[in-house]
Amino acid sequence: MRAGVGLLDRLGTVAIIGVGLIGGSVGLALRTRKLAEWVVGIGRDAGRLAEARRLGAIDEATTDFQRGCAGAEVVVIGTPVTRVAADVALAARHAARGALVTDAGSTKRQIVEQIEQDETSRAVFVGAHPIAGSERKGAAFARADLFEGRVCVVTPTERTPADRLARARAFWSSLGCRILVRSPESHDAALAWTSHLPHAVASALAASVPPELLALAAGAYRDGTRVAGSDAALWTGIFLANRGPMIEALDDFGRRLGAFRAALVDGDEAALSSLWEQGRANRNRYAEHDPPESSEYPESCST
Amino acid sequence: MRAGVGLLDRLGTVAIIGVGLIGGSVGLALRTRKLAEWVVGIGRDAGRLAEARRLGAIDEATTDFQRGCAGAEVVVIGTPVTRVAADVALAARHAARGALVTDAGSTKRQIVEQIEQDETSRAVFVGAHPIAGSERKGAAFARADLFEGRVCVVTPTERTPADRLARARAFWSSLGCRILVRSPESHDAALAWTSHLPHAVASALAASVPPELLALAAGAYRDGTRVAGSDAALWTGIFLANRGPMIEALDDFGRRLGAFRAALVDGDEAALSSLWEQGRANRNRYAEHDPPESSEYPESCST
Repeated sequence: MRAGVGLLDRLGTVAIIGVGLIGGSVGLALRTRKLAEWVVGIGRDAGRLAEARRLGAIDEATTDFQRGCAGAEVVVIGTPVTRVAADVALAARHAARGALVTDAGSTKRQIVEQIEQDETSRAVFVGAHPIAGSERKGAAFARADLFEGRVCVVTPTERTPADRLARARAFWSSLGCRILVRSPESHDAALAWTSHLPHAVASALAASVPPELLALAAGAYRDGTRVAGSDAALWTGIFLANRGPMIEALDDFGRRLGAFRAALVDGDEAALSSLWEQGRANRNRYAEHDPPESSEYPESCST
Repeated sequence: MRAGVGLLDRLGTVAIIGVGLIGGSVGLALRTRKLAEWVVGIGRDAGRLAEARRLGAIDEATTDFQRGCAGAEVVVIGTPVTRVAADVALAARHAARGALVTDAGSTKRQIVEQIEQDETSRAVFVGAHPIAGSERKGAAFARADLFEGRVCVVTPTERTPADRLARARAFWSSLGCRILVRSPESHDAALAWTSHLPHAVASALAASVPPELLALAAGAYRDGTRVAGSDAALWTGIFLANRGPMIEALDDFGRRLGAFRAALVDGDEAALSSLWEQGRANRNRYAEHDPPESSEYPESCST
């Protein structure tokens, strides 16, 4: 490993375990921005790795974790949440001395707890979650600009080494992310509302509409169910890793829908209008946080 | 009025009552496609009419319903569902002899029942619902191609004059719509699932997320709540006009969400996965019906 892995230096070798949508986008961003001298993709499926290489997401592909991690200054874990802790343990044992290991999992508490039980992992690991994904799977949908302007939540604990934390912040920043630091628990409690609940709702909505009526589906169905096309194993893993906060969010959502139903039964125009305005106000608040990317996602879709 | 208002002839004068997003798009489509010699916009707000004229959606603007309708071969009602029946009655009395009056309301049973109680209205009216809208309001968001490839449900009853039905089909087809013919009841039962339920769900979801967490909102929230920004009065009217079918749809959706909650409580991976796959399968069926408009709405949004 080179001397002087300062925050502003170009990285030497970065290894990415799991070169799917997120891992592939990390690779593309590193290579496009010339942030690393060499990007190694590591995975279990040689075919997928070859595709990632063909797409320019990595310089080199290997199914040999030990060889792939050797010499890496940074190892990014891009595998599903159920596999992150095991892959961190492997990376911690095979990466260069002084390496940083970070992940991109959508839940953090369970992952960080598992990882901190292993001293070797704990010494090198900083949890992270770049809030940028898609219902699409695989390096074919990776984009060099996937992280630009996106929030990345970094989730240290009191046991996280300070130098690794600084490097994890610098690493995700260098890909274009805006960094927020939260505890793993605080991250999971927030994401239950802002991502996991919306996924569960999208899935139930997608399933509700009788198939013979889909020809009459409007834009509200299309947009409201987009993420329901995501990978089942990935999302089942996320839901199970964040059960408590998700049940809370589901119950609150259920109460709101119940109030809506009651207003409908009563034909109560004022109550319906008030419920609608609550949603509209929050949606408008959100739009201020995250202005529509007009060139990419014009929101003038059909209803 | 000209002789020979055949299905293939260019129309003379078309009047549009309510020149908002839908009415404005009808005007733009008529003028861009050169389907009418003259397009008159009629409304209650002179400022909005002037804007619609400036935007090229109409040739002439007036707040005088009688003058505006006089001489029109076709009158399109683009006002909210709570106003459609009254505007049809006005149009039926002031339009040229032989005129067709059609609407674009999102619900049909109540509107058609009201209209059929008035003999003058009934003799000229054919209900229609082009399934193309937006959470945006006003002629400023109108588009000449809003109806291209979109389904328009035409909802005659046994009392609808056959010649008007043929002309309504030809009219909406000429704007680019694919025509489906359904009874008003069948339309409303379907749209409760395909549009009204998704709107109620989007609204409850938008309201659920605590405001202080919106900075962490992911693409699933953004897309799942897009339509929650729509106009409150418009949607309250639609919900109240379709209470029965909507309550049924809400209850089915609630049962699915309940099953999801139960699987979470039990930590039942197989059940969660099965529920997720049901949503995914229906979402994929939908995508076959309505292939993504890749240039306009790339679905590679962030989650």
